[in-house]
Amino acid sequence: MTSIPHLTLVLGGARSGKSRHAEALIEALPPPWTYVATAQAWDDEMRVRIAEHRARRSGDWLTLDAPLQLPAAIRSVTAGPILVDCLTLWLTNLMLAEQDVAAAGRDLIEACAQASGPVMLVTNEVGLGIVPDNALARRFRDEAGRLHQAVAARACRVVFMVAGLPMQVK
Amino acid sequence: MTSIPHLTLVLGGARSGKSRHAEALIEALPPPWTYVATAQAWDDEMRVRIAEHRARRSGDWLTLDAPLQLPAAIRSVTAGPILVDCLTLWLTNLMLAEQDVAAAGRDLIEACAQASGPVMLVTNEVGLGIVPDNALARRFRDEAGRLHQAVAARACRVVFMVAGLPMQVK
Amino acid sequence: MTSIPHLTLVLGGARSGKSRHAEALIEALPPPWTYVATAQAWDDEMRVRIAEHRARRSGDWLTLDAPLQLPAAIRSVTAGPILVDCLTLWLTNLMLAEQDVAAAGRDLIEACAQASGPVMLVTNEVGLGIVPDNALARRFRDEAGRLHQAVAARACRVVFMVAGLPMQVK
Repeated sequence: MTSIPHLTLVLGGARSGKSRHAEALIEALPPPWTYVATAQAWDDEMRVRIAEHRARRSGDWLTLDAPLQLPAAIRSVTAGPILVDCLTLWLTNLMLAEQDVAAAGRDLIEACAQASGPVMLVTNEVGLGIVPDNALARRFRDEAGRLHQAVAARACRVVFMVAGLPMQVK
Repeated sequence: MTSIPHLTLVLGGARSGKSRHAEALIEALPPPWTYVATAQAWDDEMRVRIAEHRARRSGDWLTLDAPLQLPAAIRSVTAGPILVDCLTLWLTNLMLAEQDVAAAGRDLIEACAQASGPVMLVTNEVGLGIVPDNALARRFRDEAGRLHQAVAARACRVVFMVAGLPMQVK
Repeated sequence: MTSIPHLTLVLGGARSGKSRHAEALIEALPPPWTYVATAQAWDDEMRVRIAEHRARRSGDWLTLDAPLQLPAAIRSVTAGPILVDCLTLWLTNLMLAEQDVAAAGRDLIEACAQASGPVMLVTNEVGLGIVPDNALARRFRDEAGRLHQAVAARACRVVFMVAGLPMQVK
């Protein structure tokens, strides 16, 4: 398996500064910058989070919404670096829509390999707590772990965020 | 934002050796050593934990209790290094008392900047598991993450503990 | 405390690639390779996981089942490297059987020190999420943290897995 030279995976816990770090990596490159949002505003809590993220980004960012069609959204970008925020919400959406998660993951990696510019994938590490009581949560963290491994194996850079600071894993 | 040269943040999971590591860092310095405890003995489980920590420290330690007034406690120390154990319990106490957490965080950092000696802040990383079901737990891990980022941005040393061993983050 | 030159601890979250990494470390050494399984097939979910792990290993592996008698299983191996998968399930079994966890941990470390070949211990980090509601889960993560610290203090190599990639802790 060859690595994808322009692919970065930014993992971290809740409020560990993942998005901010990935935004800074992108803003160090020439625009246009594309933000691919996978969040869906189901409730007020989510609406607030989305608005906060949007407010932080300058007007130089283009925003694409891709709650499910993430690989297609990446393929639609013809120039400049891409920030995907985040894989965990995309995975949630795929599971709620009962889609084939493994196939979607392979398609995502292929879309990243074909991208014309750098791609930064932001995602939540969710597997370091006590085994969850409910089976769906256990399946979710298994699927997330598999997706992270598959992406990390092909990425040229993997970063684990701790308290807003990046630790280089690869 | 300038970094605070004598400020260290020691993060880690439950029973990852955070307190022990911070104690060792302090005991390598000349006394007097001040231990600022934020724990409140609400129940027997907590009383046992507090007693265990106390028993481990030698008689050379001074102990201050500061369940809420942590910045004031730090300011009251006139000489020697300070160990704060821990930020997560302080944050819990602030939230239970419905205080302004963001303002308290800024005050804490200011108190650390003004301290005459080294300050080691111990805290729990709680954001790497599955998203909690209950809204209060979600708010808690958001606030904890924000506090950790704010402190880590100013600290000159940040350590992530794994199985009792320090990984240098900064 | 002297370190045990042939002892490796591989920690990580759910689906972080711990077993796969430990297997690769062992398969780089000459056979015979012994896999010591601590899992008990209580339910279908666990049966599937055990079958997946078994299917991945080649026919060159010997398998020992040791849900409780892990130190004895290690002592019974007379040649070649040993993979123990995993300490967290062993700890679960010890706690369900109401055994002395601290004594069992000391016995495990002694058995590793006496082993004729390299020993790789795989384990789940479970202490980086929100404090669990239930007291048993809290006790479990405390015991797991203590066991990890005790083992890591004696191991010559400690690896923290992130997205299938090893971070060297020691």
